[in-house]
Amino acid sequence: MSIILALHTSDIRFPTSASLDGSDAMNPDPDYSAAYVRIVTDADDGLEGHGFVFTIGRGNDVQVAAIKALAGQVVGRSTEDLLEHMGATWREFVWDSQLRWLGPEKGVMHMAIGAVVNALWDLKAKRAGLPLWQLLSRMTPEQLVELVDFRYLTDALSPEDALQILRAAVPGRAKREAELLASGYPAYTTTPGWLGYSDDKLVRLATEAVEEGFGMIKLKVGANINDDIRRMRLARATVGPDILIGVDANQRWGIAEAIEWMSRLAEFDVAWIEEPTSPDDILGHAAIARGVAPIPVATGEHMANRIMFKQFLQADALQVLQIDATRVGGVNENITILLLAAQFGVRVCPHAGGVGLCEAVQHLSMFDFVAVSATREGRVIEFVDHLHEHFLTPVVLDRGAYRAPTIPGAGTEMLATSRDEYSFTAHE
Amino acid sequence: MSIILALHTSDIRFPTSASLDGSDAMNPDPDYSAAYVRIVTDADDGLEGHGFVFTIGRGNDVQVAAIKALAGQVVGRSTEDLLEHMGATWREFVWDSQLRWLGPEKGVMHMAIGAVVNALWDLKAKRAGLPLWQLLSRMTPEQLVELVDFRYLTDALSPEDALQILRAAVPGRAKREAELLASGYPAYTTTPGWLGYSDDKLVRLATEAVEEGFGMIKLKVGANINDDIRRMRLARATVGPDILIGVDANQRWGIAEAIEWMSRLAEFDVAWIEEPTSPDDILGHAAIARGVAPIPVATGEHMANRIMFKQFLQADALQVLQIDATRVGGVNENITILLLAAQFGVRVCPHAGGVGLCEAVQHLSMFDFVAVSATREGRVIEFVDHLHEHFLTPVVLDRGAYRAPTIPGAGTEMLATSRDEYSFTAHE
Repeated sequence: MSIILALHTSDIRFPTSASLDGSDAMNPDPDYSAAYVRIVTDADDGLEGHGFVFTIGRGNDVQVAAIKALAGQVVGRSTEDLLEHMGATWREFVWDSQLRWLGPEKGVMHMAIGAVVNALWDLKAKRAGLPLWQLLSRMTPEQLVELVDFRYLTDALSPEDALQILRAAVPGRAKREAELLASGYPAYTTTPGWLGYSDDKLVRLATEAVEEGFGMIKLKVGANINDDIRRMRLARATVGPDILIGVDANQRWGIAEAIEWMSRLAEFDVAWIEEPTSPDDILGHAAIARGVAPIPVATGEHMANRIMFKQFLQADALQVLQIDATRVGGVNENITILLLAAQFGVRVCPHAGGVGLCEAVQHLSMFDFVAVSATREGRVIEFVDHLHEHFLTPVVLDRGAYRAPTIPGAGTEMLATSRDEYSFTAHE
Repeated sequence: MSIILALHTSDIRFPTSASLDGSDAMNPDPDYSAAYVRIVTDADDGLEGHGFVFTIGRGNDVQVAAIKALAGQVVGRSTEDLLEHMGATWREFVWDSQLRWLGPEKGVMHMAIGAVVNALWDLKAKRAGLPLWQLLSRMTPEQLVELVDFRYLTDALSPEDALQILRAAVPGRAKREAELLASGYPAYTTTPGWLGYSDDKLVRLATEAVEEGFGMIKLKVGANINDDIRRMRLARATVGPDILIGVDANQRWGIAEAIEWMSRLAEFDVAWIEEPTSPDDILGHAAIARGVAPIPVATGEHMANRIMFKQFLQADALQVLQIDATRVGGVNENITILLLAAQFGVRVCPHAGGVGLCEAVQHLSMFDFVAVSATREGRVIEFVDHLHEHFLTPVVLDRGAYRAPTIPGAGTEMLATSRDEYSFTAHE
């Protein structure tokens, strides 16, 4: 029996705007940042739970304040009570009636809950001596369904539906776990495609990507159609016909504009169009999906919660679902979203990059392969080669695939030296 | 030419949970609070701009932190530059690429923008020597359209559509302004209907509401169907057949549950069902609207932004649109939503109550009557008799109608004595 002693927060910012890494049509100068949380208990094991929200600079302090506001719901509580009933723990956070007013279930307060929930999962996985993906993959279907809050979902996914999906995947679990450990999970890379890069840099990085074994790259688009056509032509000429090329507009367009713009890029064989418009516009995405077919529409990294994902699936408004490790209410809500995707038969290709998003989200895709969808077909996890060196268990890419992590935890622990060095307050 | 000297914030909380004022099926014990902002310039006029976000307690400090994060975009700027181009000012806040990541356009950060935008409108109205509703009602259609950001909206409302609506309302403006000053804007009252009140208190307050001239009351429902049936029967017996009774479930239900529950209450002649389910569930509300017809569905107080309102209107998912003065990005975004409602021919019945929401939102409905929809038909502003005494220009109700305010400003200024007395930090 142990008690949670403290919930420590830090405001960590990397000055990435200097190099235009991460520049796109809507985010010209991001400073990749983390609103970070560290949960400490009085247990002898010395284990801590780490989590964070990824932001792009200004406002990271607001996100930290929101995480701090949750301390009262964690500090002084029994660690075991919280960790053994992670479904109930999630509900406690999300259904706090006063905090809920600040969303509900969206934006700063909801992401703060996600960070704390993820930190608790990190601690739970470390205590179990397993990487998060394996911890989740070894839970029973009944235990997994307990993690899910079905309020507002039963018109699309009932507890019975979820159980059926999870039970169907039980037989092959051990085999798929072995496959993951042998061959990893396929990745694609956005490294060549940032909008602020020169044509030469695009060609050099795209060439390297193919050499490194990636089967897909992604280009940022949406600022200028003529630039986009030139860059797509260059990229296609560089990688040849067999490598997939996705494009990402980062919410730049209206509906008619998205359809028109994509008609100009279609000749280059586009793997998907990502975030064509506002992430809140379900009906708009559905119209775009009809207008750009057969090019699939991909979105999700800015989608606020499971209720939005449910509707995008119901409306056939996306064909590629992109979960994000720190946008929604943490591991529990992402499991819910994986179940929704499985229910609708839609493939999941996570958003990653930023700070630590690769490290965190790989666990969810690997769990999905072992215990939910039971397939890697058509699925890739985004990879961006930034800032991995700051993490205790950085991702390992091997011939274009994420190697399955074997170190206990959720992948979310940043090195103490990095946390100190990039502490924003310290630099002010 | 003047400069903005400071953006002051305060965390103000009223201990309303002690009396169960404001209790409903999702919010059992709110402490009505305001994350408050005061903008000070170096002008000789001594005028200040005041604004706030209404919250229900915990997390009000997070909301204050978010408002503070906007100081850098305001302090040191030319007051006239900001106030004379309020459309551009709004875009600067909302399209700040780094802060936008924290939403986008939803939750804590978006509401913070709303508070600052509203404070600027308050200052602008005071400088003009007009109450906000009159200031807005005297702007030209072209000036009003400049306030609107049409990104993500043109599939439902183009600038030309908006101009057409506003121009059509120009001829009768003076007549309607005079009508407003003579007879005010109709209100309904939620005062009798809180879930925590006894049956006796319900009957007493409902009786008083009718005596005071209200034509509609509203009851909170959704916790227990038998209680709801008993309270609806009591309320209907008390007010008679000619007074409208709306019900409000505060997001309690799933879709099937909402339809089933309302089938049990329909016999009491329900004016509308408010917030039957998650405010994010457009498709769910559309299904509920079909299932409970002819009872209208009302929602909006928790809707994050204009893109959600657009879709609710496109999907016929609401029949009564409830704007809220402090949930979205302030006056500009609410003008946008009023134009969307006019475009779809849907009536607007604002959410109010809380802290200062009545004082603020009345200006928007009155502007709508004079210069947008040009009608009060079927429209009522919510009224709750709480905490008005803390405002410099408290609302005045007269035979069930809001009297049109004549004092300059947006109604959002709280008395300095109240701000001091209920300062949360001071009480910690």
